[in-house]
This record gives sequence, C-alpha cells and structure tokens, in this order.
Amino acid sequence: MNSDATGPLIDVTHDAYDVRGVVRLTLNRPDAFNALSEALLDELHTQLADIAKSDARVVVIAGAGRAFCAGHDLKEMRAAPSLDYYKALFARCSKVMLAIQRMPQPVIARVHGIATAAGCQLVAMCDLAVAADIARFAVSGVNLGLFCATPSVPLSRNVSRKAALEMLLTGDFIDAMAAKQQGLVNRVVPLDILDIEVAALAKSICAKPREAVEAGKGMFYRQLEMGIEAAYQLAGQTMACNMMDDSALEGVQAFIDKRPPDWKHTPGR
Amino acid sequence: MNSDATGPLIDVTHDAYDVRGVVRLTLNRPDAFNALSEALLDELHTQLADIAKSDARVVVIAGAGRAFCAGHDLKEMRAAPSLDYYKALFARCSKVMLAIQRMPQPVIARVHGIATAAGCQLVAMCDLAVAADIARFAVSGVNLGLFCATPSVPLSRNVSRKAALEMLLTGDFIDAMAAKQQGLVNRVVPLDILDIEVAALAKSICAKPREAVEAGKGMFYRQLEMGIEAAYQLAGQTMACNMMDDSALEGVQAFIDKRPPDWKHTPGR
Amino acid sequence: MNSDATGPLIDVTHDAYDVRGVVRLTLNRPDAFNALSEALLDELHTQLADIAKSDARVVVIAGAGRAFCAGHDLKEMRAAPSLDYYKALFARCSKVMLAIQRMPQPVIARVHGIATAAGCQLVAMCDLAVAADIARFAVSGVNLGLFCATPSVPLSRNVSRKAALEMLLTGDFIDAMAAKQQGLVNRVVPLDILDIEVAALAKSICAKPREAVEAGKGMFYRQLEMGIEAAYQLAGQTMACNMMDDSALEGVQAFIDKRPPDWKHTPGR
Repeated sequence: MNSDATGPLIDVTHDAYDVRGVVRLTLNRPDAFNALSEALLDELHTQLADIAKSDARVVVIAGAGRAFCAGHDLKEMRAAPSLDYYKALFARCSKVMLAIQRMPQPVIARVHGIATAAGCQLVAMCDLAVAADIARFAVSGVNLGLFCATPSVPLSRNVSRKAALEMLLTGDFIDAMAAKQQGLVNRVVPLDILDIEVAALAKSICAKPREAVEAGKGMFYRQLEMGIEAAYQLAGQTMACNMMDDSALEGVQAFIDKRPPDWKHTPGR
Repeated sequence: MNSDATGPLIDVTHDAYDVRGVVRLTLNRPDAFNALSEALLDELHTQLADIAKSDARVVVIAGAGRAFCAGHDLKEMRAAPSLDYYKALFARCSKVMLAIQRMPQPVIARVHGIATAAGCQLVAMCDLAVAADIARFAVSGVNLGLFCATPSVPLSRNVSRKAALEMLLTGDFIDAMAAKQQGLVNRVVPLDILDIEVAALAKSICAKPREAVEAGKGMFYRQLEMGIEAAYQLAGQTMACNMMDDSALEGVQAFIDKRPPDWKHTPGR
Repeated sequence: MNSDATGPLIDVTHDAYDVRGVVRLTLNRPDAFNALSEALLDELHTQLADIAKSDARVVVIAGAGRAFCAGHDLKEMRAAPSLDYYKALFARCSKVMLAIQRMPQPVIARVHGIATAAGCQLVAMCDLAVAADIARFAVSGVNLGLFCATPSVPLSRNVSRKAALEMLLTGDFIDAMAAKQQGLVNRVVPLDILDIEVAALAKSICAKPREAVEAGKGMFYRQLEMGIEAAYQLAGQTMACNMMDDSALEGVQAFIDKRPPDWKHTPGR
C-alpha cells in the first residue's frame, strides 16, 4: 500500500458504521486537502478494483481533515510541464472516475467540507452523495487559467447546463443546499449527523439483494446513453433476468405472502 | 372490453370534466391498487391505440380507489416463473409505455395516491402530470429484489441521475412536492381541487389547434434524442409546415389584428 | 448597419459596465417588443460573427424598452405565406441561435422583461442568463396555432421535459423564480440591480484567461452530445492542452506560490 509520511494514502474501513458489507475509503492527505496526487489516484484505483471483485456491497468515499478533496495535486502537476504528461495524467484520472461508475457496488460520496475541481468531479461521479450543510463545491480551475474540463463531464450530467457553466466560468463556490437543489448531492444534513445519514443510506442499500443492485446499477448508466426505445429493450431484458434470480422470486413471493423475505440462504447475499 | 369481477378494467369517460375532446381512462382494479395485470396492460394499449386514431384532443390517466397504480401484478408475475415469459411481459409493458409518448394527443397523469414501480413509470412516461399533495412515488421493486429497470428508463429522463438512483437503490417514497421539485410531476395541489387543476390543464390544451399540438409533441420527443444541430433542422422544418396550416395562418393573422382567432371553420378542430 | 426609423437595430456598447472586453448588444426595436425581424436576425448574426473574431471576452444580450424579446416578427412572417419562405426563415434563425453556442466568448442574457417564443429561445441558447424578478418567460406560439418547435430545442436542453412540455402545450408564462428553479436562468435579482449583477458576472469571467474560457466553452457543448467515455477523452485532451498555456502554467505556479497570477504579459490577455 502506498503511503504519505503520516500513514496510508487511503484509510480503508471494512464493515464501516457497523454495517456489514460497507467499505469506507477515506482519502488521507489532510495537510494537502486530500489532493489527488498520482500516488493517491493509483491507490484509489487499486482499492476500487479490489472492492469491485469483492463481496462488499456499498462503498463510501470520505476525506480526512478539513476538506473533502481539493482536486489534483498542483505542485506535482506544475513540476512536470509537458503535454504528454498532462494527457497521461488526465487519462489516468478519468479512468479512476469511470471505475466508480462501472463497478457493481453503489458508491456514496460523504462530503463534509470543500470539494473543488477534481474533488467536485469525484462527488459528481459517485452514484449518490450526502453532504454536510457546511460543505461547499466549486470547479475553480478557471481561477488559475485551467478550465475544469474533465470535472465538467460528470458535473454537466448532474446539474443543468447553465448551472454547470456558471460554476465552470466563474469558479465560484456553491453551498450544499444549492448543490442539492441542482442535483449534485442527494441529501444535506448537519455535520454532526452526517455519518448517521450516510450509514442509514448504506444500510438501506445493503438490505437489498446483491443481484438486483448490481444488475440495476450497470443497466442504469448504459440506458442513459441510449435512445428511449433501445433503453427499454435493455431494461426489459435486464429486469427479466433479474426476476429469475432466487432472491427476486423469494422477494416477490414473500410480498404476496405478506411476510418478510427469507434471503439468508439465497446465494450471493 | 376486458373486465374484472367488478366492472371494466378501464373506465372510459369521453368529454371528461365537461371539456370536449378530453378522454379520461381510469384504471379500475381498486382492490389490487390498479396493478397492471396482463389484461389491464392490453386494455390500456387498446384504449390508447383507439384514442390515437380518434379526434380526441387530450388523455387523462387516473386510478380508481386509493392508489394511482402499484405497478405490475405480482401474483400473476410470480405464478409463471420463466425467462421467456418475463421478457415478453416487460416488452409488452414497454410497448404500452412507448405508445403514450408516440400518440398524437398529450397524456396527463392524474395522480391522487401512491404510484409505485410501473405505476411511477406510468407517471414518468406521461407528457404531463398533476399530483395531489398526498400522492407519493416510489420505484420500490428493489425492496423485493427486483430492480425497477424499465421504470428507470423514463424516471431517469424526468429527474436528475442522483435523484433517480436514490429512489431506485433505496426503494424509498418521495412525496409530491419532492416529485415536483425534481421534475417528475408538473403541479401539486390539494386533493379536493385535483380535478379542477387537471381539467384546467386539459382545457388549455384543447383550446389550441390540433395540428400544432400533434406536430409539436411528435417533434419534441424526436429532437430530444438528437444532437442540437439535427434537432434544429427537424424543428425548423416542423415549424415551417405548421405555419402553413390554416389554423396557424389564422391564429397569427388574428394576433396581428388584435382579435380572437376564428378557428370554428378550420379543418381538424 | 441596418436601422429602424428610430436608430440602429442593435445598439452596440463596447467595454460595457466599464468592464474591458464586455460587449453589450441591445436589441433596439422597443415599439415591436424587439421582435426578431429578418433584418434584426441578420444584424444579430453579423454582430455575433464580428465579436467572435474580436478580442472581446464576454457578450451581454439585452433588450430596449419594456420587453426583452417577443420572438419572431409576426407581421413580417404573415405577409409571405410560403413553405419555402418559412423553412428559410427558421433555418436562418437557427443559424443565429447556434452561433451563440459556437462563438468562443460566453454570452449572457440580461432579461429585464418578457421573453416569449424565439425571445425565450434566445435566453435558453445563451450560456448564462440573469433575470429581473419581474421578467416572465413563455413559448406562446401554440396560442396562435404555431407550436414553438425551434424554441423547444434549447428549452428542452435547459429544463426538465415535463416543465418544457407544459410551457409548450399551454403557452403559459412562468415567472423568473420558476425559470431559475427549472434551469432556464442562473440568477434572479430586483430590476434596479440587474445591471450590477450582470456586470459582476461579466467581470468575473473577464478576470479569467481567455484561453481557458474559450477552450472550455467549446469543449463543454461538444462533450454534452457524447457518451461519457468519449466525453472524458475530449475533456482530458482539452485540459492537457489548456494546462500547457502560459496563462495556466503561471496561474498554477502563482497558486503554489500563494501570490496573485501575473497575467499582464501573457499572450491573449
């Protein structure tokens, strides 16, 4: 595992919040506002790839210290000014971001502080996001002359285009309530109950059969990029296969019988 | 016409709300929370196909009893566990849903109670939706191990992706105000004036020339799936043709003359 | 320059609001509610094309008199009823609208009064929009039998589909706050501080390096029409090139050094 002076680059907690199947990844470069250095990006990619293959059910991405994540590591970036280097860097970062969308488990961003540039991108890429009311969001690269191009990809798929362009062109922060109203985060709560809210959301998802969640997440993003007719074809086939899972047959039967489903002996739980 | 023990599967009212041209289809399986059995799906398809060819102007879809619609008929579904059966069932349902979008008349969902799973999908597929403040919405299949894949298709085309995923992964209800804020319904009113609001909306559309509404609705959904340049080409051609309609020529002339349009003698009204 | 009886069709102000690089185009047919006659459309196209090639940084589109813009010039349209004429007219209008999106400078709509039909379209096409609280928006062609097809193209790319369809099918106005909540405008302020707000927004963008803003705006709209993987490729390449700009290298270095960037001697500023 990679590490900074003060410990691992990512702090990994299994069965976080005392919920079985929840893995919390805490970006652990607090003095650098959890800036995504190359090493941290690689470590995040490795962790996500490992979780993707594991029997974990939900991932939570959090940040140590005062910030959630301040984007790329600018010192590192500035030290190696070459077009090839920057192309490779952004390609690597994009790969990590897409890994979040492509992994079978839902990923929740736990945003307790500022999320800027690629840190805001990270929130936008997560399937779900819960923010403290003091959290703030910006794609502020333009303030330095560097338009947040890669962050704009998921941002513009979360919020309306005018809202996205305002953030991208001004570099201004929006607060957590604005982020919720615009679609960037799902829930906003006081900081002292942030973990309670994240835990409740994670627990709710863990209570659902794995097959339904996995098939559903994958189908969801694929159908978003299709015309509505093709989307319906994919969704119908996915749902038919899902219905044949033991867990769905049992779940539906239990509903008919007005009893809780017995999923203890279902494979994959 | 198909029927349950207690009457027709769909109660059809012509010139509903005393507005000429409004057809109200009331799903009429109140004891089953208007669950979309195969027979009800077929009946809905038949009714929509008939209306599409008729001179009706607006369709309202409502539900009898306490619920708007609780989705598929789970007893029926569970009784025939085969992949082919489920594929055919979801394909059939998708065909009905797409018929709503493809028919020339605007379709308004009148949502007075819960709308879950394919019932929520039905709301999302309608062109417009008016909800009572006590209405609630969920895509709750995941609670039974069956991810609401086909409902996710129109849901994710109504609300932001994080909002859609939260509903799909948790199965939780949202209330009518949240549904409005997120884009799933247009208007929320107290239950006792729900029909007044639906009637006003339907009447407003009936007051417009048929040609404009029909050409406009068809073009609207087609251009949504295009790049903006192709969308403009389609829209420009549609609008040019529409402008040559007698009703548009008269409507524009009346506006210039500062008088109400005389559409009584216009063909197609 | 084209002109009406009372002056130029568009009043052009350079360094508007005392901000260097801001060009304000004021539609100047107040007695016609700034209706987009053919001459006005052509003049707008000419002005936008000139600005696109100039060193201007931000464009503001405003309207003289009580209205922002009431759409096409209906008298002119009605006087020449031929399909070919209407096709050519809407193609010409679409070309002007697309020029806004394709020009390198951000374009801000300054909406102080009503914006209807192609006037509402103009607001939707602008990158950003600031409205007075008394402004109102409608795509009201359907009231005359002419569905606002071309306006529906950008409208449906700004607001949710049900909100767009409600406006298109009813022709009803929405107020400025609803326009903001739905995504059609960015900010709503009292009329007496509208210019202060527009100026602040324009000034904020002018403070950013030109290269970042230009490359960013172009990339933003292109990636919106791509799947997420292709979008990331385009964005990553754009950002890598942007990072090699002198202005970005200096901006990032200044951030590291905790000093303001020295962009005075940067080319393109």
